Amino acid sequence: MEETKEKEFGNLIRGKKVAKEVQDGLKAELEELQTKSPKVTPKPGFGYIIVGERPDSSLYVKMKIKACEEIGIQVKGDNFPVDATEEEVITKVQELNDDPEIHGILVQLPLPDHIDEDKVLSIISKEKDVDGLHPANVADLVMRGKSPRFVACTPFGCLHLIKTVCPDLSGLRAAVIGRSNIVGLPMFSLLQDANATVTLCHSRTKDIESILKECDIVVAAIGKPQFVKGEWLKPGCIVIDVGIHSIEDKTKKSGTRLVGDVDTASAKTVAKYITPVPGGVGPMTIAMLMNNIVKSWKIENFDE
Amino acid sequence: MEETKEKEFGNLIRGKKVAKEVQDGLKAELEELQTKSPKVTPKPGFGYIIVGERPDSSLYVKMKIKACEEIGIQVKGDNFPVDATEEEVITKVQELNDDPEIHGILVQLPLPDHIDEDKVLSIISKEKDVDGLHPANVADLVMRGKSPRFVACTPFGCLHLIKTVCPDLSGLRAAVIGRSNIVGLPMFSLLQDANATVTLCHSRTKDIESILKECDIVVAAIGKPQFVKGEWLKPGCIVIDVGIHSIEDKTKKSGTRLVGDVDTASAKTVAKYITPVPGGVGPMTIAMLMNNIVKSWKIENFDE
Repeated sequence: MEETKEKEFGNLIRGKKVAKEVQDGLKAELEELQTKSPKVTPKPGFGYIIVGERPDSSLYVKMKIKACEEIGIQVKGDNFPVDATEEEVITKVQELNDDPEIHGILVQLPLPDHIDEDKVLSIISKEKDVDGLHPANVADLVMRGKSPRFVACTPFGCLHLIKTVCPDLSGLRAAVIGRSNIVGLPMFSLLQDANATVTLCHSRTKDIESILKECDIVVAAIGKPQFVKGEWLKPGCIVIDVGIHSIEDKTKKSGTRLVGDVDTASAKTVAKYITPVPGGVGPMTIAMLMNNIVKSWKIENFDE
Repeated sequence: MEETKEKEFGNLIRGKKVAKEVQDGLKAELEELQTKSPKVTPKPGFGYIIVGERPDSSLYVKMKIKACEEIGIQVKGDNFPVDATEEEVITKVQELNDDPEIHGILVQLPLPDHIDEDKVLSIISKEKDVDGLHPANVADLVMRGKSPRFVACTPFGCLHLIKTVCPDLSGLRAAVIGRSNIVGLPMFSLLQDANATVTLCHSRTKDIESILKECDIVVAAIGKPQFVKGEWLKPGCIVIDVGIHSIEDKTKKSGTRLVGDVDTASAKTVAKYITPVPGGVGPMTIAMLMNNIVKSWKIENFDE
């Protein structure tokens, strides 16, 4: 996937480029299916709910809408004020559940403190749960012999990136750092299901260096800027950096720059492949959301 | 928990004794609650379904019934012939779901090939799913910040045994060998939730010795007789042996003897604590089933 020649260390896995390939593929697939079967629901539909005006949440939603528009997914959105009630939000989720033009529902997190996130998420129909957080999808991801309808977008995107440089994970050692419900835990299940031998590391893990030293794949999702150091890594490994943090940098005009959970400068000298921040995992999260919406539409219309 | 003095290596974790303590505790608790609140459902109720006459399944069910009787749990059982239809079994599950005297339902596995196990298990009400296999219980076990109503009995029993000799697992390294839905995967989640750093090993794992060498806790549930060797282990570790196999032994009158997934003779010289086979994990599975039935009855009657 690299245009430049592959080096022994420090090759970038360009998530932005891979995400564009995924989205271009989805667009082409949609156009083909719509031409062949003009009678099916004309377009996949994406319904989102955002409460309040957090700049990060607003930006993420904007990026998702833009991706939908590029692919040919119609969007119905609801922007609630920050003091919206839980009941209002739940009523809207139920409307989207019942709307035959909507195939995927996203409630942008975090919600304001007075709204119970778990309660709101549990209302989303599992058939439209394109974020992969419904208990039925979680259980199907975890259990052997079952396949979830939807997988959480960020870890699903990370697995896709890993596979672009290493299609067969069987027998490899992997470490996932961080155990959140939306990244670390589903990432563990995906790597395990791909037959890697996975160690789940977290804030209570001792001597993490000695674990990473053995691992062919490292996924860092612990939420600490530049936490993973190059000298902890196994030479030639693959590093996926899920973190994104703004840190002070006086050499920049803005006074800040974006970094991940990995100290990229040192890691690049040891890892064979590494995702940049920004432009690595972030774009893939959106691409996999698009993938899930189109998948939902295909199941609805083509019984796949 | 050992009556004899603790040694540096080879102390037995006597599951049979621990299981008896758990069951005696449940019996005492039941008697106390029934004396205090004579108006509540007089007894917890256990409903089982067994199809066919496999000797191992029949034996397990008998042991579960005996434990219920000792504690004071009433039992309603249905023994179907091996050619019972899926519909008959499902109808019985639904009857048990609706029966207010039943607080826990067990369908003894395996079912004959013509009956879809997943389908039958998915019918069991999650409020009576004392085997902990319902997707809602699986998802709640896996996800951070949630607590399942019921945990699968064998891994739950293993955790209980580990805690008798090591109450605080935070920061320890653990390996689970085997990734079945009823043992390996929930065992991983339980150890992880107890803040151990867990590596899930399986049939595709390479160089398992080097992983076990780092681990303070090893749970073997891979289904291969005497697979784990003492020389693979970290000196002073805790070994939980979930396997049970009958192997040839000409020195025995019966011509066979029972062994686990661990080569106990060599492991005893390296591990500080190890469960025997038989008399280790097996009795704990039954004790945790009893625990789950009583828990269900308490939630129903005391809103716990």
